[in-house]
Amino acid sequence: MTKFDKTKFELDNLIMNHDVYEIIKRIKRENRGLKTLLKVSKSLSASLEIEDVLYKAMEYVEKVCKAEASSIWEIDHEKKELFFRVIRGKHAERIKKMRLKIGEGIAGHVAKVRKPLMVNDVRKSPYWEDAFDSESTFQSRSILAIPILLGRRIIGVIELLNKKDGRGFNQKDKENLLALSGAIAIALDNARLYEERKELFIQTSFALATAIEKRDPYTGGHTKRVLDYSLQIGKALGLRGKELEGLKISAILHDIGKIGIPDSILAKPASLTREEFEIIQGHPVIGAEILKEIKGMEKIVNAIKYHHERWDGKGYPENLKGEEIPLWARIIAVADTFDALTTSRPYRKRISEREALEEIERNIEKQFCPDCGKAFLKIMRG
Amino acid sequence: MTKFDKTKFELDNLIMNHDVYEIIKRIKRENRGLKTLLKVSKSLSASLEIEDVLYKAMEYVEKVCKAEASSIWEIDHEKKELFFRVIRGKHAERIKKMRLKIGEGIAGHVAKVRKPLMVNDVRKSPYWEDAFDSESTFQSRSILAIPILLGRRIIGVIELLNKKDGRGFNQKDKENLLALSGAIAIALDNARLYEERKELFIQTSFALATAIEKRDPYTGGHTKRVLDYSLQIGKALGLRGKELEGLKISAILHDIGKIGIPDSILAKPASLTREEFEIIQGHPVIGAEILKEIKGMEKIVNAIKYHHERWDGKGYPENLKGEEIPLWARIIAVADTFDALTTSRPYRKRISEREALEEIERNIEKQFCPDCGKAFLKIMRG
Repeated sequence: MTKFDKTKFELDNLIMNHDVYEIIKRIKRENRGLKTLLKVSKSLSASLEIEDVLYKAMEYVEKVCKAEASSIWEIDHEKKELFFRVIRGKHAERIKKMRLKIGEGIAGHVAKVRKPLMVNDVRKSPYWEDAFDSESTFQSRSILAIPILLGRRIIGVIELLNKKDGRGFNQKDKENLLALSGAIAIALDNARLYEERKELFIQTSFALATAIEKRDPYTGGHTKRVLDYSLQIGKALGLRGKELEGLKISAILHDIGKIGIPDSILAKPASLTREEFEIIQGHPVIGAEILKEIKGMEKIVNAIKYHHERWDGKGYPENLKGEEIPLWARIIAVADTFDALTTSRPYRKRISEREALEEIERNIEKQFCPDCGKAFLKIMRG
Repeated sequence: MTKFDKTKFELDNLIMNHDVYEIIKRIKRENRGLKTLLKVSKSLSASLEIEDVLYKAMEYVEKVCKAEASSIWEIDHEKKELFFRVIRGKHAERIKKMRLKIGEGIAGHVAKVRKPLMVNDVRKSPYWEDAFDSESTFQSRSILAIPILLGRRIIGVIELLNKKDGRGFNQKDKENLLALSGAIAIALDNARLYEERKELFIQTSFALATAIEKRDPYTGGHTKRVLDYSLQIGKALGLRGKELEGLKISAILHDIGKIGIPDSILAKPASLTREEFEIIQGHPVIGAEILKEIKGMEKIVNAIKYHHERWDGKGYPENLKGEEIPLWARIIAVADTFDALTTSRPYRKRISEREALEEIERNIEKQFCPDCGKAFLKIMRG
């Protein structure tokens, strides 16, 4: 029997036993399903900044399975807990910081046994935990939960909540969700790897910057505080994603040029001479020099170089003025000055936070960018 | 007409005009194609260490389209050139470093016009470049080349070489390849982003380590040289991938603990007192302290901490012995000592490379791990 004959024979058998319309419809349906799956699979891997992509994927899954809400839990293997990677639905914001122990609740149970669980009346399930509903005021009725497996390793759990028709989820919903879970697993894992890289970079930069900072005996904790203030100002000004990340790295590295300043000047327990002061003023340029060859660091190099420029053009090293000064540098300038004012130096005593804020207010449009200065005052004064 | 009636009506029309077997077979074929596509799409996004994945994907594409060889070119937008990301086929090794200008050759032409090109007799094509064949001794006959587009941006070109049946590629091959190119584009772009992150981390660490090294006026270029020697030893010992990368970062950061040593000791233009020497000997521990909190740096922290241990247990800080000392630390120890011997210090003159190698040879199994020491001698003596 040739291959063609075999197919023909199988088809004959099929057609004898079923309505030909039904057969064609079934294959066509499968076909459509595959196309959608392919589309979603592709969109899932389309970004390493995964939150948005997963959010959209869940939106789609909700639509296909007609669910009211959904979430993706990721597993924190160290703490043996689940946390939300994505959460969609009424008052999701209220519960997104909540965690679940492995074994606890429906998602926790699925994480433990690594098998799908379909619960069509949550009140009757031995695994049901009410805490999330009471916090969010969302009312769970039916839940479909499946494990996200990467090979044999479990990395998370997907949950669909409340089938809209009120009748609960069915076998078909489960199959659809299972078909997608492989692609979700990969997307999640890629995003995790990418984030680990980011974190490694940021934390190593921070550790090295802090070590360098320690050479200056008068500025303990300065890097950390400037970083915190800068991020708060950045967020208040609406920065997010890559913009916020760049600001973060700039703030961490803003003083690394101090590596080029001798101990004798950094540690001098008295006022500096004019010459020594000029040497210290070289640190933004030295910092920029250190990083200038690195591809992808151009904006960060500029933020470091110009974090002592002033809005009125009277700063250093290049007397840039107003918006000629990069935004990250203008933000760091406010954070840096506030921290300098509120910590003691050999040549002057610290002033109180209240006084420092007044000082900053007086210097808006002179020393500081008005937007950055005002945002900071608002943050600090509440 | 209900939805069901409409489908039935469409099917009736179809069946009236075609053999029902043919219809079912066609849909089933499409179905199988989609399933394969889904499988390959998924496997393409399964790793950020992309070389292997792309290599396997091309293996599959060659099989489907019955081609003898294949390659994926990536575009270096800065230099306006194409380089090989993947290359499969006879003597591929010989040409994998060769580059192509955009516009040059068949792949270069496709990169320029962003349209597929099917050439079934390369000698007749105005775009044909013989250089690659003469170098590899591969004989190209037919080529199918399609652009890899990410949205509207071109990031590479896929080439299939020599249809095995001798008749050249056809429309179906082109369609198959086009269907996959979207997934390849995404995989390639994710890998690129991930690599950029890695590079940013390594280069920033290197820049900061070099800046820290500059505080010691006697060790100019030390970090760079220890890095180079260490990588050569690591490669000779068969390290690759993550192992080689970890060694790289350890070698870059091995002396960062010197940030904690005062200028007065580092820059002392005379022999050190016993006390000063002990302070300097603290640098491996200080270096490890700086990075110890960072998740994912554990092995690097140990390599830094133990790069002054000796094979015979007489090193510092913990008198570790033999294979108790982490491999990366043992490798760096050889590289570090060789560089110290061949550069001048205030308390002793440099010795020649030949003498330094003899010194290392004499100290194998005393100061140095035999494998690392011997590998280094072999590298340096050729």
